[in-house]
Amino acid sequence: MTPTVKAILANYESDNPGVKGNLARILMQGRLGGTGKLVILPVDQGFEHGPARSFAVNAPAYDPHYHYQMAIDAGLSAYAAPLGMLEAGADTFAGQIPTILKCNSSNSWATGANQALTGGVDDALRLGCAAIGFTIYPGSDDVFDMMEEIKELSAEAKSVGIPTVLWSYPRGGALPKSGELALDVGAYAAHMAALMGAHIIKVKLPSDHIEQADAKKAYEGHDFSKQSDRVKHVVQSCFNGRRIVVFSGGAAKGADAVYQDAIDIRDGGGNGSIIGRNTFQRSREDALAMLDKLVGIYKGEQ
Amino acid sequence: MTPTVKAILANYESDNPGVKGNLARILMQGRLGGTGKLVILPVDQGFEHGPARSFAVNAPAYDPHYHYQMAIDAGLSAYAAPLGMLEAGADTFAGQIPTILKCNSSNSWATGANQALTGGVDDALRLGCAAIGFTIYPGSDDVFDMMEEIKELSAEAKSVGIPTVLWSYPRGGALPKSGELALDVGAYAAHMAALMGAHIIKVKLPSDHIEQADAKKAYEGHDFSKQSDRVKHVVQSCFNGRRIVVFSGGAAKGADAVYQDAIDIRDGGGNGSIIGRNTFQRSREDALAMLDKLVGIYKGEQ
Amino acid sequence: MTPTVKAILANYESDNPGVKGNLARILMQGRLGGTGKLVILPVDQGFEHGPARSFAVNAPAYDPHYHYQMAIDAGLSAYAAPLGMLEAGADTFAGQIPTILKCNSSNSWATGANQALTGGVDDALRLGCAAIGFTIYPGSDDVFDMMEEIKELSAEAKSVGIPTVLWSYPRGGALPKSGELALDVGAYAAHMAALMGAHIIKVKLPSDHIEQADAKKAYEGHDFSKQSDRVKHVVQSCFNGRRIVVFSGGAAKGADAVYQDAIDIRDGGGNGSIIGRNTFQRSREDALAMLDKLVGIYKGEQ
Amino acid sequence: MTPTVKAILANYESDNPGVKGNLARILMQGRLGGTGKLVILPVDQGFEHGPARSFAVNAPAYDPHYHYQMAIDAGLSAYAAPLGMLEAGADTFAGQIPTILKCNSSNSWATGANQALTGGVDDALRLGCAAIGFTIYPGSDDVFDMMEEIKELSAEAKSVGIPTVLWSYPRGGALPKSGELALDVGAYAAHMAALMGAHIIKVKLPSDHIEQADAKKAYEGHDFSKQSDRVKHVVQSCFNGRRIVVFSGGAAKGADAVYQDAIDIRDGGGNGSIIGRNTFQRSREDALAMLDKLVGIYKGEQ
Amino acid sequence: MTPTVKAILANYESDNPGVKGNLARILMQGRLGGTGKLVILPVDQGFEHGPARSFAVNAPAYDPHYHYQMAIDAGLSAYAAPLGMLEAGADTFAGQIPTILKCNSSNSWATGANQALTGGVDDALRLGCAAIGFTIYPGSDDVFDMMEEIKELSAEAKSVGIPTVLWSYPRGGALPKSGELALDVGAYAAHMAALMGAHIIKVKLPSDHIEQADAKKAYEGHDFSKQSDRVKHVVQSCFNGRRIVVFSGGAAKGADAVYQDAIDIRDGGGNGSIIGRNTFQRSREDALAMLDKLVGIYKGEQ
Repeated sequence: MTPTVKAILANYESDNPGVKGNLARILMQGRLGGTGKLVILPVDQGFEHGPARSFAVNAPAYDPHYHYQMAIDAGLSAYAAPLGMLEAGADTFAGQIPTILKCNSSNSWATGANQALTGGVDDALRLGCAAIGFTIYPGSDDVFDMMEEIKELSAEAKSVGIPTVLWSYPRGGALPKSGELALDVGAYAAHMAALMGAHIIKVKLPSDHIEQADAKKAYEGHDFSKQSDRVKHVVQSCFNGRRIVVFSGGAAKGADAVYQDAIDIRDGGGNGSIIGRNTFQRSREDALAMLDKLVGIYKGEQ
Repeated sequence: MTPTVKAILANYESDNPGVKGNLARILMQGRLGGTGKLVILPVDQGFEHGPARSFAVNAPAYDPHYHYQMAIDAGLSAYAAPLGMLEAGADTFAGQIPTILKCNSSNSWATGANQALTGGVDDALRLGCAAIGFTIYPGSDDVFDMMEEIKELSAEAKSVGIPTVLWSYPRGGALPKSGELALDVGAYAAHMAALMGAHIIKVKLPSDHIEQADAKKAYEGHDFSKQSDRVKHVVQSCFNGRRIVVFSGGAAKGADAVYQDAIDIRDGGGNGSIIGRNTFQRSREDALAMLDKLVGIYKGEQ
Repeated sequence: MTPTVKAILANYESDNPGVKGNLARILMQGRLGGTGKLVILPVDQGFEHGPARSFAVNAPAYDPHYHYQMAIDAGLSAYAAPLGMLEAGADTFAGQIPTILKCNSSNSWATGANQALTGGVDDALRLGCAAIGFTIYPGSDDVFDMMEEIKELSAEAKSVGIPTVLWSYPRGGALPKSGELALDVGAYAAHMAALMGAHIIKVKLPSDHIEQADAKKAYEGHDFSKQSDRVKHVVQSCFNGRRIVVFSGGAAKGADAVYQDAIDIRDGGGNGSIIGRNTFQRSREDALAMLDKLVGIYKGEQ
Repeated sequence: MTPTVKAILANYESDNPGVKGNLARILMQGRLGGTGKLVILPVDQGFEHGPARSFAVNAPAYDPHYHYQMAIDAGLSAYAAPLGMLEAGADTFAGQIPTILKCNSSNSWATGANQALTGGVDDALRLGCAAIGFTIYPGSDDVFDMMEEIKELSAEAKSVGIPTVLWSYPRGGALPKSGELALDVGAYAAHMAALMGAHIIKVKLPSDHIEQADAKKAYEGHDFSKQSDRVKHVVQSCFNGRRIVVFSGGAAKGADAVYQDAIDIRDGGGNGSIIGRNTFQRSREDALAMLDKLVGIYKGEQ
Repeated sequence: MTPTVKAILANYESDNPGVKGNLARILMQGRLGGTGKLVILPVDQGFEHGPARSFAVNAPAYDPHYHYQMAIDAGLSAYAAPLGMLEAGADTFAGQIPTILKCNSSNSWATGANQALTGGVDDALRLGCAAIGFTIYPGSDDVFDMMEEIKELSAEAKSVGIPTVLWSYPRGGALPKSGELALDVGAYAAHMAALMGAHIIKVKLPSDHIEQADAKKAYEGHDFSKQSDRVKHVVQSCFNGRRIVVFSGGAAKGADAVYQDAIDIRDGGGNGSIIGRNTFQRSREDALAMLDKLVGIYKGEQ
């Protein structure tokens, strides 16, 4: 256990050794093990967009084993997926990579901003997962329900030594599409996740737009044109760095943009990337090369 | 136990021996036992359409024992029905045919796309069932509720060694009637069932129509005019063949069309047919002859 | 135990001895004991119509003991009532007449087609009831909720040896008032009750009208002008006679009509009558005379 | 124990000794102890109307101890109040007066005809209460929910020896304000309470108006111009006198009207008064004098 | 233990020693320990307004430890915050300051007047909290749901020796914004909290406006132009002083206004202040100076 990881775990001061042990499993895993940085592979696109939109461009990715193997071979920190995806490889790859059971899911037909519960703590335990994952949509008409679901799920998970990764994605309600990526909105969403008791907070990289009229004054006089400064504000909003924060990669895009994001996350004090479509929608070779470079960035080699 | 069945069971790697044992009961049953292929008799039409529309054309079928006997005499893999239907024959036919308790049901008066829970895991256990069955309607306004119901039910069933057969029928919400049988929609519905952790996935044979605008690009350049290729895509969407997929027969139709469907399912790598009205709405003699031929197709004799 | 009753009980092949024993209590009770025929006294009009509309015409009927005594003195098979009515006489008449706890109830002010749960299995046990009773309204917007309530209640009851009597009364939703008594609708409602796992099915005597367009074809070429033939079709729809079916008497009417109904029920193979207002809204003497005649009809003496 | 009280308890024939014992505590308490008559002090006006409207006219009544002491000093049968009010005096006055925990409450801002659950059976047990109290609003859109709440609560209470006092106040839904006090409506509400299994039924004194068109015929030819005859009909509607019925006093009014009501209740066979605002909105001296006179009326001394 | 605190605890006469012990922990803590007066630091603004609006003006306050340390250094009575905030310092500061787990929370995007449950009694126990906190919105369309949530939570808390602090903030429904601070409305809200069984009642300082038409008469002839008299009426409405009442400070404002409020609370017999933004939105030095002065006021030194 490195001093860096020990220092991170010390911030989770009210958690039991089970929770800390599972956080350590993730923080000590793979090529970034011990650095306090993370790269996580999430594969929940099948629920969100369906199989063909997710995997047709790289057909081997239809097979759940493909993703486990990718996360292991790339030396990543953890692999996150819904119930069925994990069940299909949990035995073959047991002990080789920490897994995160994504416990709720939406789909392309959903008319409201909500998700269905599709997994639980008992599932996470029997599949040997290191954490559970859950999405809330701050701003949504249903956000109180989603918050109460994760309140229950997270309390149950904590009691059996399983940490919670909270996807906090502003969406729905009175929040316009144009405001979902605003800096104030993203920092607020991250702070809500911290207040809910999340161990790892997953948000999107924010733009420099300020959406809420009431929040404008608080941001006046500060320059947030640099992405790394925006990352810094999000990290600050997560108990001044006392909680692990990772940023999602968004839609597949050019490799350079992916690398620049990682550099900014690192320079802003973020803990890492959670990156799905940008890996499995490339060929295995291209994905491995990209992940190798991302790991290098977080190790400070680039 | 044949190597084929062993290979199928190996794909259910995270399941306990109870679940695998019940899957084996179905896969080793009847004339297709050991081949990895299945023909299942479902009789839930009474709920869906009422007794006269279901059975008046073949009055002996009003008697629940008729269907048990048909499934046994035809050498089928399993018999699926709602609570009352199974209770009425569970003792007489105990040990002679694996049964699947259909746990939710709709009816002709339903105004929304949803179903009522009418059976549970305790019922399945006391009736000696080999599996539970459940329908979800992807696209429906109530699909999150349905998903959460089967999430609970399926977790309970897995814990006591009972596998889940998931009927995944796109319907309702923003999905037009014309899109319910589209290839992209059907593959998505099958994939959702796999992600939910279903052991056996039951879908309808899709057409070559692509419904979702966002999905069109993923299907470009592929030719899905052959039904067996569409079956292949659905199987691929179920974890690249790691899950058993069976196709429903739909409304009663000409025998030749029924046979052609089975040939295409077989050639596309599907695991079999689940065929109700096409059997019990024919005379016993005709039904037995048709089932004999279907079994032959799946055995590769035709 | 007569061979007739033994044969009926044999149809409940998946039920435990507790359930069969309570069915036997009802089938062996009173003057029809052993014949396989039943006359049940239900007094839930107070909930449905209020006390004055129910009892003012025959004031002694305000007293719950009146009905217990009537059912006993007339040699009936069972007495069915809501919680408070049974509590008020359960001790005085313990062991003298099987009772059925009606577990849900509506009232004259209800705006939707639903009922409130007003009793449960624990109540049935402590009051020594032989069965629970429950109403569903097939067609109603709330029917899925009602079905899920009785699914839970009935499973709990079965597990402690208590059978379920299901009132299946089509009403509400898209079903017009004029279709509530249609033959296809009534047979469908009875079949749904059988599929739900009911032990005794209670429906109304249907007219020869066919309501559902989709069902017309199934009834073509059959003549249902005789009421006994309509009863026969309902019985057929209840697993071809494997379930006990009783018919309700409806509003108070002339004695001859009551007798003719009973003759038709008997001749069509129904198991009996459940008859409330036609008894307690007559004087005790008239009611006893009528019940005596009804018993005679079911004994085949008329 | 007097023969009168023994006879009343005998009507609760299905209840356990715990429930009967608590009914006896109330029936044997105070100056009316043993007579079968009751005067109960209810103080839930703070919830309904707020503190100033309830107590400003008589400021000592802001103190919960004031009401306990009043009920004791006036020799009343029981004191009913919401959770906080009872908690504030339960220890000081333990053993001096039976208390009734009012378990649901409304307030002046409520837009619908419903109440919030604010106390439960565990609270009643730990506070040593002799009964729980609950309000239903027959006619209300939410009445099925309220009925299901008291069904649960009452079953739990009965199982631990605690009787239920049911406030049955017609209100809401299709029922016009002008019909809330109608004789048919009040008798129906009282009957519903009896059917729900209530031990003590609390209703308002009805007018001689008949509200429901369908009920008019049942009341034809009867003269209900005398209030005592209306009381008699309500008592008859409560299982012909097998259940204790008390009548509420309504808004503060002239003393003579209060006395006349009590005389009519007594003459009609009602069991007593439940009288709040007419006591605590008078000075302690005036209230004690009034209660003394009321007790005298029920003792037949006036 | 001082006689003053003993006298306060004696008012909680129905509570178990666990609850009284935790109340004593708060009442005996810090510089006001033993005086019966309280100053509580609440930091739930991050949920309500987001991180930047709450903490940007005083950046060290992004760190949860900052607030614990402030409460300790200022010699306050307790520190109240949501789950994540407490978890982040519960171990470091264990035993140094009583904490109150705020169990529900709203946010800036909420469209209705409700909150989400974000913490529970098990959390309070494992974090060693001295109390739970909860907000209800009297007047809101959802207030019955909120009341039922705290009814459950509070009963659970009492059973394990944890008292409840109830934030009672009129809002929503038919209540106009202009009436939220009215004297009658505030006193009613405080009284409802007392009736719900709260141990510490937290309300806003009311204006001298009377909002409810029906309440005007009760206030006629009384002069409420002095703030200390309005405090007195609120205290009277909390069981005539039998419950601890604290007043919130509202938005950040001038120091003199803050001091005057405290003087009026003290002179009106209130138990203290719960003051958040007015402390953490000032520099640590200014906040400590202000809190020192407030403590002085409550000690009667000013």
